[in-house]
This record gives sequence, structure tokens and C-alpha cells, in this order.
Amino acid sequence: MIILRKDATQAQINAIIGAVGHYGLSTLLVVGATATTLQLIGEEPTDLETFLGGMPGVEEYRPVNLPYKLISRKHHPEYGMNGASKIISVGGVDFGGEKPVIIAGPCTVYNEKQVMETARIAKECGADMLRGGAFKPRTNPHTFRGIGEDGLKMLAEARAETGLPFVTEALSVRDVELVAGYADMIQLGTRNSQNQDLLLEAGRSGKPILLKRGYWQTIEEWLQSAEWVASTGNLEIVLTERGIRTLSNPTGGRFSLDVQAFVTVRTLTYLPVIGDPSHSAGKWQLVPGNARASLAAGAHGLELDIMRQEEQGTIEFVVNGDTRHAGFVDYAQGLRPNVFAPLMVQLREKYATVEPLPAIT
Amino acid sequence: MIILRKDATQAQINAIIGAVGHYGLSTLLVVGATATTLQLIGEEPTDLETFLGGMPGVEEYRPVNLPYKLISRKHHPEYGMNGASKIISVGGVDFGGEKPVIIAGPCTVYNEKQVMETARIAKECGADMLRGGAFKPRTNPHTFRGIGEDGLKMLAEARAETGLPFVTEALSVRDVELVAGYADMIQLGTRNSQNQDLLLEAGRSGKPILLKRGYWQTIEEWLQSAEWVASTGNLEIVLTERGIRTLSNPTGGRFSLDVQAFVTVRTLTYLPVIGDPSHSAGKWQLVPGNARASLAAGAHGLELDIMRQEEQGTIEFVVNGDTRHAGFVDYAQGLRPNVFAPLMVQLREKYATVEPLPAIT
Amino acid sequence: MIILRKDATQAQINAIIGAVGHYGLSTLLVVGATATTLQLIGEEPTDLETFLGGMPGVEEYRPVNLPYKLISRKHHPEYGMNGASKIISVGGVDFGGEKPVIIAGPCTVYNEKQVMETARIAKECGADMLRGGAFKPRTNPHTFRGIGEDGLKMLAEARAETGLPFVTEALSVRDVELVAGYADMIQLGTRNSQNQDLLLEAGRSGKPILLKRGYWQTIEEWLQSAEWVASTGNLEIVLTERGIRTLSNPTGGRFSLDVQAFVTVRTLTYLPVIGDPSHSAGKWQLVPGNARASLAAGAHGLELDIMRQEEQGTIEFVVNGDTRHAGFVDYAQGLRPNVFAPLMVQLREKYATVEPLPAIT
Amino acid sequence: MIILRKDATQAQINAIIGAVGHYGLSTLLVVGATATTLQLIGEEPTDLETFLGGMPGVEEYRPVNLPYKLISRKHHPEYGMNGASKIISVGGVDFGGEKPVIIAGPCTVYNEKQVMETARIAKECGADMLRGGAFKPRTNPHTFRGIGEDGLKMLAEARAETGLPFVTEALSVRDVELVAGYADMIQLGTRNSQNQDLLLEAGRSGKPILLKRGYWQTIEEWLQSAEWVASTGNLEIVLTERGIRTLSNPTGGRFSLDVQAFVTVRTLTYLPVIGDPSHSAGKWQLVPGNARASLAAGAHGLELDIMRQEEQGTIEFVVNGDTRHAGFVDYAQGLRPNVFAPLMVQLREKYATVEPLPAIT
Repeated sequence: MIILRKDATQAQINAIIGAVGHYGLSTLLVVGATATTLQLIGEEPTDLETFLGGMPGVEEYRPVNLPYKLISRKHHPEYGMNGASKIISVGGVDFGGEKPVIIAGPCTVYNEKQVMETARIAKECGADMLRGGAFKPRTNPHTFRGIGEDGLKMLAEARAETGLPFVTEALSVRDVELVAGYADMIQLGTRNSQNQDLLLEAGRSGKPILLKRGYWQTIEEWLQSAEWVASTGNLEIVLTERGIRTLSNPTGGRFSLDVQAFVTVRTLTYLPVIGDPSHSAGKWQLVPGNARASLAAGAHGLELDIMRQEEQGTIEFVVNGDTRHAGFVDYAQGLRPNVFAPLMVQLREKYATVEPLPAIT
Repeated sequence: MIILRKDATQAQINAIIGAVGHYGLSTLLVVGATATTLQLIGEEPTDLETFLGGMPGVEEYRPVNLPYKLISRKHHPEYGMNGASKIISVGGVDFGGEKPVIIAGPCTVYNEKQVMETARIAKECGADMLRGGAFKPRTNPHTFRGIGEDGLKMLAEARAETGLPFVTEALSVRDVELVAGYADMIQLGTRNSQNQDLLLEAGRSGKPILLKRGYWQTIEEWLQSAEWVASTGNLEIVLTERGIRTLSNPTGGRFSLDVQAFVTVRTLTYLPVIGDPSHSAGKWQLVPGNARASLAAGAHGLELDIMRQEEQGTIEFVVNGDTRHAGFVDYAQGLRPNVFAPLMVQLREKYATVEPLPAIT
Repeated sequence: MIILRKDATQAQINAIIGAVGHYGLSTLLVVGATATTLQLIGEEPTDLETFLGGMPGVEEYRPVNLPYKLISRKHHPEYGMNGASKIISVGGVDFGGEKPVIIAGPCTVYNEKQVMETARIAKECGADMLRGGAFKPRTNPHTFRGIGEDGLKMLAEARAETGLPFVTEALSVRDVELVAGYADMIQLGTRNSQNQDLLLEAGRSGKPILLKRGYWQTIEEWLQSAEWVASTGNLEIVLTERGIRTLSNPTGGRFSLDVQAFVTVRTLTYLPVIGDPSHSAGKWQLVPGNARASLAAGAHGLELDIMRQEEQGTIEFVVNGDTRHAGFVDYAQGLRPNVFAPLMVQLREKYATVEPLPAIT
Repeated sequence: MIILRKDATQAQINAIIGAVGHYGLSTLLVVGATATTLQLIGEEPTDLETFLGGMPGVEEYRPVNLPYKLISRKHHPEYGMNGASKIISVGGVDFGGEKPVIIAGPCTVYNEKQVMETARIAKECGADMLRGGAFKPRTNPHTFRGIGEDGLKMLAEARAETGLPFVTEALSVRDVELVAGYADMIQLGTRNSQNQDLLLEAGRSGKPILLKRGYWQTIEEWLQSAEWVASTGNLEIVLTERGIRTLSNPTGGRFSLDVQAFVTVRTLTYLPVIGDPSHSAGKWQLVPGNARASLAAGAHGLELDIMRQEEQGTIEFVVNGDTRHAGFVDYAQGLRPNVFAPLMVQLREKYATVEPLPAIT
């Protein structure tokens, strides 16, 4: 519907009616007590807003279509209005079902021993799936960017031993095919949430996608990022809330975990949504609370950074044949087994079932 | 400690040393590899930062004292570093102990029947305490501002019948004495979180204070608001996280509930902290998730808006002898018994104990 | 207009029609191609939104009235749509006319010599009006809060010598009468922008009000704060943009000056709006750019912190007969004459006329 | 420097000393009155922070190096501390000199007639350079994404006729070579500000880069995005402030123009920085104020969206041989000649010289 300006001239109104006619839309002029509106009849195209925004005589345009119709619950009544999700199966693990899926693993992959031992911790504590970064997005170009394909091989070995499928990040359109060749699921990180080239390329791989929210995105923008993936025909998408930038706050976490997003996202889309309690926090002390809060609010699962008990801040790895040392990426936020193991017991006991949504009305 | 500029002159350094001497501080000049610092010896006053910020030759000043020392855990080692809280007792209800305290009641008090019936719902469902607004803070001056002292009387009657103590808001320094004469606890709302006049007046009443976070405040600023109350000698303060303003987001809640605040606040102060899942959300569908998430993250309790099942959006009340109708304030966010009752069962079963903090190290 | 839900029942629609009837509103049901709406006929009360938000069958309510109608341009066509302002006269100085008004003075008043000398700098450099804080709002209760009435007397002496009227802040409803007895204009600070008690009390004094924007307020909320003052019948209000809290950014200013606010505010209200380049910045290096940018964007004037050339970071003052020293409040942001004098020359030459608005259409 | 925890054990301190030794750093232990610190001697690597953040016994690490050293003023004393910039020459136009550079052109390229006529307006009004989008970044995948290489050819024709060089955006690593083959300068848009793959590819092209700020980036993060480009050896970078996301505000612009960024950026880097007044605003009424404010604050130039006077909201274009109509992208924000022409006169008269920085001290 178009709200017309009070001083709209007949010539302007005719121009508007003619213009929306370009889109095959008919109109109904309604003269109300407080406003005159043009009701639009027909299928409204997505870019109508852009176009009408500048037409003389238009006060406001209110579109009827969601800009993420491929993934919206509203446009897919088959999922119902009770919060039921599409099941996304990844190597035998089902996201979107009754049981929360817990992904755990090292933030970054350094060497075989580290990966295997950390994977064993994940397995022993009852995680459903592994995570680990071989290609690392960084804010600063002078920092370590991951060991690349060698890391993918190590993750594949860890999968072979533990039986757990793994997710890992692709940073570049050039890496998608390589990553897809090893991984069970491709992660797209927060900094790439609006890298449309990568959203499309990852979508086209046909692999399930774990899509992090840009730390600046409204929920509507985030869902449109998922719509880019979906526009390739790939609907195997799991959304991940990982914290948004809010107030400056040196004493809290690095980002603010948006727990209300879990219910809101489930209301708006049929895709599952999990929480990343680690990257929101930036320090391990906040992670158990975030993990419980995510599931309590309605998340379909969690992705957790963990590390070995004895990890010491630096670690050895090999790049191009050179042995090097580096500081652990996000060292302060990884859970060690002395915290992770009892947390997993608590999560599996108290949070064994995905919280149902309040009736969506 | 003061970090000196690389090009600080000896005259500038002498001026700085002289100036901090005004405060009775001695100094130790440390010439390091990458920076020259002045270590300060003695009790650093709170306004040293303001003063040093503009001194020529100063690169940065890093204060050693917390600006909320009266309420800080660091300055009160008697509370330990395991997250134990001071117990704040309000009419027999203990905040800060092992059991989460649940406050419930109508956002706004309109008439006796409404208050009594809503209070009975709170009681029957197992709430520990009542809430209700007789003086209402509003963004817009043309809206209903509450029925005042009549509302306090109704709340007192509801207390008499149910045995539950009640908390209600004071908006003005002129109302503090009146409110203190009826209520068990005085609420200071988000818009008044930096109204220092009111913080002091409420503190001086000697009543326990429920202090909401300003929806724009960093955690440090919020704790300093509590420090204003504490500066009157009144340490009976319960903090309340009620959502902060973040991204523009028409599809989520009105504010973002900052769940990380629960652990962070408990780490920094010995005062208890509860959650307000209702005002963050602005709509009832988000409230159950917020309520569970708050307790899961470590809150000491909750303050919930509830209403009668049959509430219809408008309600009758009497002001100055005139009978009037008004729309319910925050009508969309109140829980009705059909949601509130099963939520209370779930909360009392699964969230019966306040979550312990991870060891503070 | 009310947008009805697609699944709204006839009973729900009847209930809505009945409910808005309580407010004396008639309705027109319009069944459109993409939505069914109820057009409201009559005067819509401000709290209709609150009330309709929760009615079953309502998808959305879109109000026709601005919540700040006393001060809105839309409701006061006599000011035209070309950005012309109401003239607010303060001791012979006109805000809202063609010439930008420049207020300058010390952030804080400490002693007579400091005030007189700083006032002379303001006068000599061509400022129109003085500023100075006798009551100081502070985040931290342990910091200096101003010298009170003695400061008001010093400002009055500075006015007597220089002929410049002065503005100073009132922090408490209890101080309004005292401040009004000395000052030409009462400043209400950012932390008190939603202290409704103080907004009303200051309004009732009849004095012109300089109303700072809360550093968290949307423009709509800020205008509603002005509406509280206006609701007392006092329309002598000058708005002041002083920076909003945005991204965490240790390398920029303390707040972000919202330059777009100048045009937006002038479009929405007929009240004048000035800029405070000093408090947004927090350091003097950013102040000249902010000052020029404010006038370039369309501000009706500026309020600037200045200090004597020789100011050294600490200063002597007397409270209750005790001589004390303190660090300058906001020392780093004050302009000294070596920067202020040439800036004033530039401002008076290049920015001599308030920028007209683009035609408001 | 490392601030040690008060309870750091000797074993922990030894571990820290050993660990930083991995990086070739020596240490100096300084026991001060209020804190014990380890001063680091040697070249501190960028990832030391990550690594030290999690070491037991560490309270805080304060790095000495800027994470954007290739482009920092501090590490390049040859540019001085008076705000002088590196000159970036683009087809004979110098960014960073005394004269502000004004880029103007259509937001989006549709057809030859539109491009040529708009380019002539830019030329006649005195712009220095053209802009125009052939590849368009969009939030929504269902909207028009630009006409691609045909658009590049049209821009090249417009350059041939007007003599003005042009800048245009590359969206994908796959398009960089193509874009570089036509354009004088490659624009990297706000959504790609952390697309590191693209930052590197564009850098490697050797073309001058116009790098927009991510609308969520702190200034430090933005400068690190520039550092990614610089890490390829390409230092021909012009930064562009284009508005950041702040408060939800339906009545102001889409983003908030951060005018303080101009001085801050010039203080921190020797690269030039220009303003984009159009995308911050989202509506043309705010653009003249933003344009003047940017130059007043210290910008080295502007990038402006303009359109033909008679533009009507929709436009014809050809894609893959099909003639289509679409709504103008960002139609509401383009300046028409009746506003653009007098604005250019005002800018060239009153803002003819880039504002010098206050002395950087």
C-alpha cells in the first residue's frame, strides 16, 4: 500500500498509478479520514520500495512481501506456525529436530596432535559434531591466517577416528571447492555475512551451510544473507547467532549475545538457528552462561570453542615446511575439559530438548 | 600509572609530578624499552583521570581504583571471589541467596479489582513478591502517568491479602517519602538511572532499592549509578538488567537483553542482579525465553509483567474522582495465566537454584 | 489506520471497533488486495498505540498524530515549511534568527578570577553569551559536583561586566528556583533528558530552556523531552545536539556528533537547534572541526567550552569556607584562546548566516 | 607492557617470560606501588595480544605497535604531524592536496543516455571525477545487481567526452581485473570492507583504491581494512567515511555521518579521507548539509550521487539483450541539478581549501 502525501496532486497520483503499472500492478484509491492510500493489487516486486521512495506525492510505501521469501515461514505454511523447523542433516546429525546439536572443537587448527586430542575431548564429552578453523578470518593482515589444506586433512582424520562430522570455514570463493571436498558443512563467518560472492559460491557447492550473523546485522539483514544462499537452490542452511556490537563496554564481553534472536528468527524462518556462546563472550568465564542461556531461549544447538587442559597460549605448527610458533587465536575464550565436561553434563540433562516456541499468533 | 609521551620534556614531567603531589601522591619514574611511565604511590583520587587527561606530556593515565568502590567485589574481599552475594532482605524475601526471587504483577495499577486479581494470580503461581506501577514514567507527556497514591494503597491491600511484599517505582524526589511509606522496596527506572537527585533521595529513605540499568549504560556506568545510592550509606540495592538499545530492529524486541551482564555484574560487585525479561522484549512471545535465559545465565531472580487472562486492552480507572478509560500500558508484553502458570512451573523445577559463577580468577 | 491480521475473526474486528469507539473514533473497513485495514475517523489519542498493540486481530497500528504536537512544525503551519524558526530571545540574544548564536565559557566555575578572565576571553573573541557550570552532573559520586550558588554569583558578575547573558545547568528540581533567580537561561543536561520531574519544573520557571539531547535518544525521543517542557506552557526552548553513543572507539571522540540531526530537527520542529562540539569530542583537537561542521550542516548556533591559555589542569576553589584543589572537569576538551580566537574569526566570516534548509517537501 | 595480576605466582611470571622469549623479546620486571609490570624489550608481534590474553598471571597486555603500521602516521614521520597527506593521483586528479576533490555521478549506471547526460551535469557543475555503479552490492538477492561490463564501457565513454576520470565498484575477486581494465580507481564498498579476499585482489591490481568504511567498523578496524590493501604493496588508498549504524531512528537518515572521523583518521594515517554524504543520508534533503559538514570538518573531498532533473523513479536498461525497466537504486538520495549546481558553487567558494588539522600533539 502507498500512503499519499496530503498535498499530492492529481497529476502526481496519475504518475504513480502509471509507474506501478510498469510492474503489472492495479491500484485502488482509498480516501480515508486521516490519509489517502493507494492499495496495490498484484505481485509486488522487491525493488518497488526503492523506486517509490522518490516519487513525488508519495508519503510512504509499505510492502507486502518479505525480502526473504525463500526462507520465510510466512511463505512456507507447510512448516506451520508452531516453530517447527526444516531438518538439516549433516553427516547423520540433524539440526532443527528435538535434540540440541552441540558442535565443539578448537577455534583454530595448528597440528595433528592438537586436533586429534581436542577432537577426542569433544567426543568423550558427548558433542555431536566437530569444528575447527583451517582458514582464519582476521581483522589484521599481519596475523596468522591458518594452515590451510593441511588443517582440512587433520579435521578429516579426526572425523575418521571419532565418527563426528565437521564444519569449517571458507574465506574465499577460491577455497570453496577445496573446503567442500573435505568438510561436511561449510561455515561462513561474521565478516563475510554480506560477501555476496561467497554466499553464492558456497550455496552452489550444495553443501550444508552454517551462516553466522554479521555482528552489525539486523535480523532482517541476516535473513537476507541467508536468502542469497537460498537463491542458489541450496536450502540446507543453519543460522548462527554469535553476538552483536552494542555499547562500548570494556568490562563485559566483546559482543552482546542477542538471546531474543532465537525466538524471533524461529518465528520468521523455518531454518534452524544455533548459538555461538564463545565468540560473543571473548572470554571463557562468560561461555557457560551464554551456552545455557542460548538453549534456554530456544536455540537448536551450540557451537563451542574448546581446548586441551594443558594448552599454554603458544603452539607449534608447520607452514610451507617451516616450523613456527604462534599465540593461540582466541585463546581466552576456549573452554578446557575441567569446565567443558561438567557443562556438557548439565546441558544434556537440563537442556535435552529444544524449547518449543510460544504459539506464533 | 601514567604513560608519558615519547616527546615529554623534563619540564612537563616535573609539572606532572608536582601536580599529582597536590593529591599527596609520590611517583616512581620507570624508563622502559617501549614506554616511560610514572608509577603513582598513594591513594589515587577518582578525578585524577579528568585532570591528567589534559596535562602536556601525558600519553595516558590508567587508574588503579574502581569508580564504584563502595559496591565492588574487589574492594570487599569478605564476599569472596566465588560469586557469593550480599543478601538483601525485603519483607522476608531474600535476594542474593540460593533461590531465584520472582517478582510478578501488573505493569500498571488501574483499579482495586485488577490489582487484587492480578496479585492472586502471582500468589497462586508461586511468585515471591509483587510489582505494580502507581507512578509511571512515560516518554510522551500526553499519556497516562499512573493513579498515584491510590495505587499505592491498592498494592498495600494486595500485600495484606497475599502476604507478598511489593516493589513500586518512585519517579520524583517529592514522591520518595510517600512511596517509602507504603512499599517494601523502591524501584528506580531506566530513564532515571542517572537522575542523581533521585538516586540520593531514594538511598536516604533507607528502603531497599531495585535499580534498573539505563538502556544506554555500560556496565561501569550502571555500577556507578548504584554507587550514588550506596554513597548515602544504603547498601540494600538489587540491580536489574532490563535490556539495552542496540541495532535498529523492527522484527526483534524493543531492546536487547544483555545476558552476559549477569556474570559480569556478579564478578564486579557483591550486589545481587535480577533480570526484567518483559521490558526488554516489549512483547509477550519473547518473555518466556528471556526469563529462562536470564536464570540460565546467572540472574538472582526475575521481575515479570503479568495480567489477567481476560484483559482486553482498555481498562477503567478513577483519577480525581473522574472515571476514565485508558489503554493498558505495555499491554503487549504482559504474560497471561495460560503462559505464566506453566512458565512458573518450569522455572521452579529447572531453575530452582541460582547458577554459581565460574571461578573468578 | 489499523492493519488487520489476515486471520482476524469478525468477533475480533467488532471488538476493535468497539474499543476505539471508547475514544470517540469511527471506523471505515477497507478490504484491499493485500491487506484489510480499519481507517480511523476522529482525533486519535496518543496512547492508542499502546492499547491497540495487544488487541487480537491487529497486525499493526499506524498513528496519524506526532507525539510532540506542541512543538512540531507539522502542527504549526504558521512557521512554514522553509525551516524558519521561532525566535527565542535570551537577554537580547536571538536564537533561531539569521545569525548563529555562539555561547562560550568554562565548563565548570571554580573561582572568581577564573570566571571573569574566561568571560573576558569570550567577550573579546565575539561570543554572544556565556556558559558555566555551578552544579555539575557527574557519572561518579566521588567526584567534584560544583560550587553551587557561589558559582551563580560569579556568573552574574561576569554578565554585569561583559554584558553577555548566561546559561547554566540545573540538576535538581530543588535548584530550579535558585538557578532561575540568577541565570538568563536554564540548561538541562544530557543525563537529565528524561528526568520528567525536572523537565516540568524547569518549564514552569518560565525561563528559556537549553535542552541537551540524551546521548542515547532517537530524535523522536528528544523531541518528546522538549514536549514535556512545552506541556507546561513554556515554549522558549533551544535544542542542543551534543553527540550520541555509537560504536566503541577508543581512537575517536567520546561520542559521535550527529550532524544530520540539525536538518532533521529543523524539519520536524520550529524550535531552534544548536550544536555542542565540545562534549561530543571530549578533546579539543576535534572541536574546531565539529564547530564548523555543525554550522555548515544547519545549526542555529554553538555552545563551546573554553579556558584560559595558562590553565594547568588543577585549580583552586572554595567550598564551605575550605580552600581546595581539584582537577578541571573536561579539561582536555576546552579551547584555549590560541585556538578559540582564530576559530571565532573563521566562524564569523565563513559561517555568518544560518544555513537555510532545503525545501521541506 | 604486561600488567601482572596481584596474585601472579613466580611460576606464572616465569612462564610468561619464557613465552614472550619465543618471540625474541626480553623483559624488565618493574614492581610499582600499585601494580607490577613486565616491560617488553624488542619488536612486539601483532598477535602477542591474542596469546597473552589467556596466560595465567596476566592482568592486561598493552601493545606498543599499531596494527596498521604500513599506513600509520606514527610509523611514517616523513608525513609530519601537521596533517599533511600522501598525494594519491587518479587520472590527473590529486587526493590529499589543498583542493577538495569532488566526485559526482549516478549511483547506478543504466543506459548510455543516462550516463552521458549525468556525466555532463557533473562536468558542467565543476566536479573533478565521475562515479557510477555497474556492479551493485545489494542486501536482497532478488533486486537488480547492475548491468556489468556494458556499464563500464558507458563510463569509459563518459570519461572520453568529459575528460573526467572515473571510479567504480568491484564486488568480486573475479571482477577485479575487468574493472581495473576500464576504471581509473576501484571502489570497495561498505559491505566488503572486511572481505579480505577482495581487499587483497584489488590491492594487487595496482589501481588506486577508494575504500569505504564498513558501517559497523571502529576507526581502528577500518584502518586495518586499509592495511590489508597496503599489505599487497599498494598504498594508493583513499578512505571514505559513509556513515555508521547508530541508534534506531526513523526520522533521521539511514546512517549517521561520523564527522569526527575526518580529523581522527587524518591524525592516525597519512592517507587522504573523503566523505560520502549521500549514502549516510539516504535522502537528498540531508545531503547538502552533510557535504558542507564533511569539508568543514576536514575531509579531502566528497563522493556525491547525482541524477538528471527529469529522472522519474524508473528507468529502462538492457541486460542480455532484453530491454527492462527498474526502479532507480537509491533514487531518494540523488541530487538533481537544481540542488547540485548551487551546492557546487557554494562548495567551491566557501570550502575551496582542505581544512588544516589542529596541531597533532
